[in-house]
Amino acid sequence: MIKDLLIRNVRPMGGAATDLYIRDGRVAEPGNPDTTVREIDGRGQIALPGLVEAHTHLDKTLIGMDWFENRVGPTRNDRILADRKAKRELGIDARRQSARQVMQTLAFGVTHIRSHVDVDTEIGIANVEGVVGTREAFRGLVDVQIVAFPQSGMLGREGTLALMEDAIEAGADIVGGIDPATIERDPVRHLDAIFALADKYAKPVDIHLHEPGELGAFCLELIVERARALSLQGRVMVSHAYCLGMLEAQRQRSLIDALAAAGIAVMTVGSPSAPAVPLGLMRQSGLVVASGSDGIQGTWEPWGSGDMLERAKYLAQRNGMTNDADLEETARICCFGGAEAIGLTDYGLTPGCRGDLVLIDARTLAEAVAITPRNRTVICRGRVVVNDGILDSQFCDEKQRGA
Amino acid sequence: MIKDLLIRNVRPMGGAATDLYIRDGRVAEPGNPDTTVREIDGRGQIALPGLVEAHTHLDKTLIGMDWFENRVGPTRNDRILADRKAKRELGIDARRQSARQVMQTLAFGVTHIRSHVDVDTEIGIANVEGVVGTREAFRGLVDVQIVAFPQSGMLGREGTLALMEDAIEAGADIVGGIDPATIERDPVRHLDAIFALADKYAKPVDIHLHEPGELGAFCLELIVERARALSLQGRVMVSHAYCLGMLEAQRQRSLIDALAAAGIAVMTVGSPSAPAVPLGLMRQSGLVVASGSDGIQGTWEPWGSGDMLERAKYLAQRNGMTNDADLEETARICCFGGAEAIGLTDYGLTPGCRGDLVLIDARTLAEAVAITPRNRTVICRGRVVVNDGILDSQFCDEKQRGA
Repeated sequence: MIKDLLIRNVRPMGGAATDLYIRDGRVAEPGNPDTTVREIDGRGQIALPGLVEAHTHLDKTLIGMDWFENRVGPTRNDRILADRKAKRELGIDARRQSARQVMQTLAFGVTHIRSHVDVDTEIGIANVEGVVGTREAFRGLVDVQIVAFPQSGMLGREGTLALMEDAIEAGADIVGGIDPATIERDPVRHLDAIFALADKYAKPVDIHLHEPGELGAFCLELIVERARALSLQGRVMVSHAYCLGMLEAQRQRSLIDALAAAGIAVMTVGSPSAPAVPLGLMRQSGLVVASGSDGIQGTWEPWGSGDMLERAKYLAQRNGMTNDADLEETARICCFGGAEAIGLTDYGLTPGCRGDLVLIDARTLAEAVAITPRNRTVICRGRVVVNDGILDSQFCDEKQRGA
Repeated sequence: MIKDLLIRNVRPMGGAATDLYIRDGRVAEPGNPDTTVREIDGRGQIALPGLVEAHTHLDKTLIGMDWFENRVGPTRNDRILADRKAKRELGIDARRQSARQVMQTLAFGVTHIRSHVDVDTEIGIANVEGVVGTREAFRGLVDVQIVAFPQSGMLGREGTLALMEDAIEAGADIVGGIDPATIERDPVRHLDAIFALADKYAKPVDIHLHEPGELGAFCLELIVERARALSLQGRVMVSHAYCLGMLEAQRQRSLIDALAAAGIAVMTVGSPSAPAVPLGLMRQSGLVVASGSDGIQGTWEPWGSGDMLERAKYLAQRNGMTNDADLEETARICCFGGAEAIGLTDYGLTPGCRGDLVLIDARTLAEAVAITPRNRTVICRGRVVVNDGILDSQFCDEKQRGA
C-alpha cells in the first residue's frame, strides 16, 4: 500500500515556502496526517507540477541504438523518406524505444506526454500498438497520449485513412493531421477527413502545420472553421504553426485572436532554425500555448534530451526573452500551458490534483529555467521515483517497463 | 617535475584509434618514452584539442553570486545601462568572477579564452586589471586573451580612448571596438581611432558589430579597408556580424569574399533570437569562423554554461544543420576555427602542438556535438586536470586560483 507523502519546505512555482501533502496519490490538505505518512525534506526547493511534454515522437527515438549517420537532404520530404527508410532498415522497435524515451524524460520530471505515432501503409498500426504497450507499462507513473499520425501523408497513400481508424480502435487517443496543402495537396479534403474521424470517434485533433506564411494562415482559418462547426473548443491543437511568425502584424494578431476565440491551442518547440512564433503576443491574447521536444535523437534531428525545463529555456532564447517574468512564463507553458492544451483536468499543485511533481534546486523560477539543474526529485502520485536526477529502479526498472 | 603522458587508444577528431604522446607539455612522436611516463587509457574516446572560447565577457558573469532579477528593457541601450548599474551596485569583482568562469569552462575542456573586458569612465581599467590577475593565476593551465572593450561607447564618453590605452599598458592584448554607427554615431572616426591604437601598439582588433543590414555591411567595408591598409591580415575579428544574415544573396556573398580575402575572421555565437549568419557559405568561402559563449549568467542573459561543445550544437541548430558532416564542421569551428581566429600558432593534435586536449565519450564526432556528454577528461600541457567532468583540486583549487 502506498503511504501518504508529506513534502516539507518546498516553494510551489518558486513562491513562498510551504508543505505539500499527497494522500492516495492526490494533493490534499494536510488535515490529520495518516500515521503511515512518509515525510521528505524539500530543503526550500522549487516545486512544479510534473512537466508536460505536449509534442514528441516516442516511436522514432534511437536512444540506446547504434549511431545513425545522418546524410539526409535538407527538405521535409527528404526527411520523411529517410524516416520511412530508417523504420524499415534499422528495425526501430516502437515498444522498446518509446519506453526508453519515457524513462529518460521521467528523470527530468516529465509525467505527461502527448506523442504523435506514425501510421502508414508500410508499418500499418504496429507503432501505435508498440506505444500502447508502453502506455500500459507506465500506467500510474507517466501518462501517455497517442496521436495517430499520418507522417507519410494520407490522401496520396490509399489505405492510410482506414489505418488511422484502425489505430483509434487499437487505442490511439487523438486524430493527427499533417500539412494539408504542401504535403496533402488538398487542404479542404484533408481537414474534412480528419475532422470527420474526430467527430465519429469523439476524439481531439492535433495537426502538424509547417505551412508557411499566408498558406499556413489559410489552413489555420480552415481549421478554425471546422473546430467551431464541430464545437471542438479545447480539443484542437495546432503543432508548430510557423506561419504565425511570418505574417504582417495585423494579420498575425487577428489570426491569433481567432484561434484563441475558437479554443484552439498552439504548440511550439521554439526551434532555432524555423520562424519564431510571437510567444508574448500569443499569451497576451489568451491563446493556450504548449511546448514539446519534437523528435529526440532520431533520424530527423540527432539531439534532444526531452527535458521540458530546458525547453522553457529554448522558448525564451528563441524569443529574445531575458527577463525573469518572461522566463517564468515559459516555465508555465511547459507545465500548465501543456496541461491545458492536452486536456488534463486534474493537473496542478492544489488539493485534488494528481500528486505528480518535480523539485528543482534553484533560488527562483527564472533561475530554474536559465540553469536547468539536473539533480531533481520527481514524485509520481505521491511516490518518490527520481532522486538526485536518478530513476529509482524499484519503481522504474528497465526490463520491467520494456526499455 | 611533470611526467610525460601517454594516452592510449583515443580517436583524434573522431577518426581512427591511436595513442597520443605528450612530452614537456607538447604533443610529440612516441619515440622512446621517458621511463617516468604516465599512461592513461583513453578507452576509444574522441580526442579534440582544447576547446576555444573565442568570445566571452569574463568580467561580467555572476556565477556564485546572488540571483540577479532581470527586469531590464529590451533594447541594447537598456542593457548597457543595466550592465553599468549592476557593476556599480552588485560589486562584481572581475578578478574573482573571471576565475570562476575559467574554472567552470575548464571542466568542459575549454583551454583558450578570448575575453572582452569592459573599459569605461566609471570603472576605468579595474576590470582589465582583475582579468589580468586571473590570466596570471591560470598561466600554464588556461590561456586568456584580453580585449580592451569600450562597452559604454568611446567617442561619446570623453577619456575612454585614453583608458583603452591604459588598458593596453596594463596588459590587454587586443583593441576592442563597438557598433561604430548605432552606438558610436560616427563609424569612420570610431574605426580610425581603434585601428590607430592597434597600429600604435601592434595589437590585433576585435569589434562587436551588431549593426543591421546595409548599415552593418557598410561598417564591414570600412573595416576591410582599414585592415588592408594596415596589413592586419589574420589579426582582425568581427564579432556577431548579424548583418551577414540580413543581406540580399549576391551582396552577402561578395562581402563574405571580401572579408575572407582580407583575412578577417568572423565570430558567431549562433544566437537563437538574432539573425543567423550563413555558416555554410562562410566556411565554403574560406572565411575563418570562430564561436563563443558571449556573456554567461550575467545581467545581459541569465543562462550559459560556457561549454564550447554545446555551442557547436547551437551553431548547427540555428542553421538548421542535422547532417553528421555539418555537425563535425561546427565542432571544428569551436576548436580549430577559434584557434585560427584568435591567432594561436601551436594549436592542434600534431607533434609540436601544445598538449591541451579533451576526451569525449561518444561514438562519432557528430554524436559528441549532438549529445554533448559531460563526463570529459581534460588534459592541459600533459597534465590530467579534469576527470569525469570534475576539476582535480590538486591542479585547480578555487582559493589558490582566486575564485
